[in-house]
Amino acid sequence: MQQGEAAGAGQERVIRVALGERSYDIRIGRGVIDGLGAAAARLAPGGAVAVVTDRNVAAAAGARARDSLRAAGMRVTEVVLEPGEGTKSWAGLQRVVEAMLAAKIERGDLVVALGGGVIGDLAGFAAAILRRGVRFIQVPTSLLAQVDSSVGGKTGINSPHGKNLVGAFYQPSLVLADTGVLDSLPEREFRAGYAEVVKYGLIDQPEFFAWCEANWRGVREGTGAREHAVAVSCAAKAAVVARDETETGDRALLNLGHTFGHALERLTGYDPRRLVHGEGVAIGMAQAFRFSAKLGLCPPEDARRVERHLTEAGLPAHVSRIPGGAGSVDGMLEAMAQDKKVTRGALTFILARGIGRSFIAKNVSRDDVRAFLEEDMRAPA
Amino acid sequence: MQQGEAAGAGQERVIRVALGERSYDIRIGRGVIDGLGAAAARLAPGGAVAVVTDRNVAAAAGARARDSLRAAGMRVTEVVLEPGEGTKSWAGLQRVVEAMLAAKIERGDLVVALGGGVIGDLAGFAAAILRRGVRFIQVPTSLLAQVDSSVGGKTGINSPHGKNLVGAFYQPSLVLADTGVLDSLPEREFRAGYAEVVKYGLIDQPEFFAWCEANWRGVREGTGAREHAVAVSCAAKAAVVARDETETGDRALLNLGHTFGHALERLTGYDPRRLVHGEGVAIGMAQAFRFSAKLGLCPPEDARRVERHLTEAGLPAHVSRIPGGAGSVDGMLEAMAQDKKVTRGALTFILARGIGRSFIAKNVSRDDVRAFLEEDMRAPA
Repeated sequence: MQQGEAAGAGQERVIRVALGERSYDIRIGRGVIDGLGAAAARLAPGGAVAVVTDRNVAAAAGARARDSLRAAGMRVTEVVLEPGEGTKSWAGLQRVVEAMLAAKIERGDLVVALGGGVIGDLAGFAAAILRRGVRFIQVPTSLLAQVDSSVGGKTGINSPHGKNLVGAFYQPSLVLADTGVLDSLPEREFRAGYAEVVKYGLIDQPEFFAWCEANWRGVREGTGAREHAVAVSCAAKAAVVARDETETGDRALLNLGHTFGHALERLTGYDPRRLVHGEGVAIGMAQAFRFSAKLGLCPPEDARRVERHLTEAGLPAHVSRIPGGAGSVDGMLEAMAQDKKVTRGALTFILARGIGRSFIAKNVSRDDVRAFLEEDMRAPA
Repeated sequence: MQQGEAAGAGQERVIRVALGERSYDIRIGRGVIDGLGAAAARLAPGGAVAVVTDRNVAAAAGARARDSLRAAGMRVTEVVLEPGEGTKSWAGLQRVVEAMLAAKIERGDLVVALGGGVIGDLAGFAAAILRRGVRFIQVPTSLLAQVDSSVGGKTGINSPHGKNLVGAFYQPSLVLADTGVLDSLPEREFRAGYAEVVKYGLIDQPEFFAWCEANWRGVREGTGAREHAVAVSCAAKAAVVARDETETGDRALLNLGHTFGHALERLTGYDPRRLVHGEGVAIGMAQAFRFSAKLGLCPPEDARRVERHLTEAGLPAHVSRIPGGAGSVDGMLEAMAQDKKVTRGALTFILARGIGRSFIAKNVSRDDVRAFLEEDMRAPA
């Protein structure tokens, strides 16, 4: 196994998430999914595995995961759910947990989350609360999940009151990010995941943002640039998570674009035909930079450069790109007030002094946000 | 504040649960509930508090808790549930969590569990998963909750597959065990809690078991013996929890009487008219000692002494005492196989070499258990 940027496609990279006794590896590369069985057998020799997945992923990669597990002598139960954000609900959670109990998954057994962010969040949370905690392996099958949701231990479901309001910090025992699985991702879903890749550059790695501007086509096409993008993203997230596992400080930087983005998702009813998470984040990041520029914190040319790259890569950078629009400024403000990052009613935003110079801004004035949105939501794309 | 056994009724005792940054105090004494507001204000000055309770406790102690919190400047929301084990369900959990979201309880706010074991387990679990974790204070109002469930961070709900199969290890920030509140407990409920007090003597404190034999009436009547019994029990549990927070080892000793007891509860449909938890534990402890005696591990006179004290204190020591009986031996074996303490199908029991000499017995033979139950479930009380 090889670490570092020199490794090309076909070689495996390993990123270590350093969290003391909860540390774990992220293995990145084409074909790493075929190592699932051996990895599971190391963790729980001869044990049982509940593979939680959705119908689409089950068709694309289910047999491969199952075969690998069975060949390694594991007893396999599959829990196959409907694709889509709607599954990340109380009903979905109850269904997964009860199915695992029915399959007699015990404390020493394993849960495998095989799918995108919805499956990872849901199955991880189910593993966290099944018998007060069963170990789990993340096998993220979307770019979004590989570079974001499968790393860091945030698990959970949505509430009628908002996204991800119910959940746990619960770390996986291993992440297998198979970059080959991404070849068959729909274009729009790939792009949405790419928004989170760009985010790591915007937070604190200006040189990586520049690399993205030059190499985004290679990431899409699956050259060695893809493994590089996934590895840099995972390493960036792992470093933040290691510093601040439960988001009491620094980790909030990862929410760049998310305060606006979550509100947009909420206002579009989590309807993926109108807006998927990564698109909300793309618009939200562009908004965060425009807002920073309007507040005089960030050079306007940096905000324009962010917009330009997102647009070039096929992502939306403005609310006017959302079919049917995003509703009113008041709606946005109300949706943001429900965000769990609210502290005592004050708004916290991730703002920027430039590309790669993001920071946590607490006590952002509601009036400033309103003034910005009045302008930003009216302007043409 | 005073520590140690010399303190009488009216004086406060403090037991520290030592868990690193998750350490907390258990304050024990008459009237400690009136310190709830001041304690909450220290943890979250000017914040909001969701008080989760049941209808009965709300009537008995709700106003006192609320007044104390409001006087300390906290914003109070009450979530009042139906009394009874049925509330410790998926539906109850969802109701509590959504009510707290509707009340805009934020990450820095507090949850107060005001009630017995059902409320403590449910509200603690809700606090654990609300916004991925909000701090909570346990105010146990039953003897059972004061000496057992409010200490140690086990939270959760029941599943149709069994009791406490879904949950989290989540420590409170403070426990306020008001021994005066127990004056109004129904006789049967008090006795049921007392079974867990006896348990600590049986596990590893033979002198405390002897103290119980001599002082159980004072515990019931509310002399200083009551604070002593609660304090010794909490200290015993705290010591075990500090050694083994997530029950990978030693902590299993606390399950003395629980493998049989949980199965009995399951087989009586969790119907409190037939059997409450503490009664199941009392029968289970007597069974564990009789089983140990039958295996030649424990002197038969110790098993008889356990039975004698439980019976004297008004607790059942045999399945024949359960109205309607406990069903068949096969039913018991099946119910025990669903227990979350099962590892790879092998049965783990807490057995004893004598009073105060309990130990964890792994790989107990199913045939031995069956042979014991065939005899024990048939014999007259």
